[in-house]
Amino acid sequence: MEIAYFNGTYIPKDDIRISPDDRGFLFAEGIYEVVRWYEGFFFDMEGHLARMKRSLREILIQWPEEDSFPLIARELIRLNNLEKSPALIYLQITRGAAKRTHSFPSPPVSPTVYAAAKDFIPENAGKESGIGIMLKEDIRWGRCDIKSVALLPNTLSFHEAAGRGFFECAFVRNGIITECSHSNIFFVMRGILYTHPESVSVLSGITRKNIIRVAKMAGIPVKEEAVAEKKLSKVQEIFITNTSGEITPVTKVDDLVIGGGIPGPVTRIIREKFNDEICSLKHS
Amino acid sequence: MEIAYFNGTYIPKDDIRISPDDRGFLFAEGIYEVVRWYEGFFFDMEGHLARMKRSLREILIQWPEEDSFPLIARELIRLNNLEKSPALIYLQITRGAAKRTHSFPSPPVSPTVYAAAKDFIPENAGKESGIGIMLKEDIRWGRCDIKSVALLPNTLSFHEAAGRGFFECAFVRNGIITECSHSNIFFVMRGILYTHPESVSVLSGITRKNIIRVAKMAGIPVKEEAVAEKKLSKVQEIFITNTSGEITPVTKVDDLVIGGGIPGPVTRIIREKFNDEICSLKHS
Repeated sequence: MEIAYFNGTYIPKDDIRISPDDRGFLFAEGIYEVVRWYEGFFFDMEGHLARMKRSLREILIQWPEEDSFPLIARELIRLNNLEKSPALIYLQITRGAAKRTHSFPSPPVSPTVYAAAKDFIPENAGKESGIGIMLKEDIRWGRCDIKSVALLPNTLSFHEAAGRGFFECAFVRNGIITECSHSNIFFVMRGILYTHPESVSVLSGITRKNIIRVAKMAGIPVKEEAVAEKKLSKVQEIFITNTSGEITPVTKVDDLVIGGGIPGPVTRIIREKFNDEICSLKHS
Repeated sequence: MEIAYFNGTYIPKDDIRISPDDRGFLFAEGIYEVVRWYEGFFFDMEGHLARMKRSLREILIQWPEEDSFPLIARELIRLNNLEKSPALIYLQITRGAAKRTHSFPSPPVSPTVYAAAKDFIPENAGKESGIGIMLKEDIRWGRCDIKSVALLPNTLSFHEAAGRGFFECAFVRNGIITECSHSNIFFVMRGILYTHPESVSVLSGITRKNIIRVAKMAGIPVKEEAVAEKKLSKVQEIFITNTSGEITPVTKVDDLVIGGGIPGPVTRIIREKFNDEICSLKHS
């Protein structure tokens, strides 16, 4: 039986019921995090915790127990016997339940805090051969730096990409490639690794930050600069990153073949270094 | 005891519990409608039903019983003894509950359909004297024509406006005033009534459409053309419209006083004609 966390207690997930007055349900007034458990440790829990706190602050939700997230996550792993499995922790915090009105509840109500653990089979399709992604006009809101649950534009765009046989959808805003529906994107041009700088147009991905760190340690020059769609023909390598998928090489963008259709050397080096780091954490 | 509708049944609202796997809660994958009951009839239920169907279609949710919405709404009025009261019906439909992934569930799951009735005291503050609104950069997504529950930008913006003493927040996109956080906006310049045309930048408000019709019947020329922020100093009158608030005159935009600080004659005529129409429907 799956055990989840709900407002201070650990209960069977099937017993959790959200109020129809929850402002997460009515207004998408909530934020979330997904953290990966590597059979023994969470990767960069500190990064996820810091981002969670920032997201809460940006949408003006106060969760007094916010520092308990790592403990809740660890307890969910234990209660669900996931210690020796690859797993994901999902955490969502909303403003709470109150009579429906655009105004925030005054006085504030308690936030709704929900977390669950699920075992997880890492997706290896495309990890060696590379995947295809689709470009699409970025229809998302102006604060993509907040990890909010207002994800309708993301899932609609992802659905469109999947329906056309692509693995992901990359967004283009004013001619600039920002990020993907649920991953960040990196480009290699003449040996330099590019990714969109932190801004309101992209989520500050935890894997994104760690990849930048790993690349620099491997001596690869990194520029946090956006890449325009029209520069794509000059790109030698592309890969996308996120918490669950880590690093996935991209060998096709719409009809354009990237790097001769096979993952390139910079992507390979970064994947190796990232895997080495995970491996050393497993054995430390 | 408040009775609400949930997936085919009428039950106490307190017994309704949404699954934490509901894609409305996790991804804001849902749409909504609010319809006003005028002590005996719904105003333009046909308009709300048509818009609901369009919203569902646009986000690819199928609700096979979609034509039953008027009957559900009527039954909620009856069950909650609201026949002789002003009331609002709230309807929300989400893609349903499924294991969390950006992909739509395949095969599709049943949508979650939730509707509730609430009695409602029409807000008259500012109806005679006029209200102040704040301008703010439009941070919403690119499909504001869909009445989705991904309303976080709307409530955040409204909260900011309310905190600064304004009654509403009007959005500006590329220098153009689009609409407000939960109302459409109209402007009078040299006797002509302007409002943003139907497009992906605004919700096609039911009251908006009816006001355009009523204005034309009253001989007021109407142009569905956007008004730029920089034209505000040339505007004689402004009002905002929505289902619950009908027509509310605006006499201040940020620091700019509109029409000498009192509601103008065009706004007054339109309010009278709209009220006449409601009144005649009550007695028909």
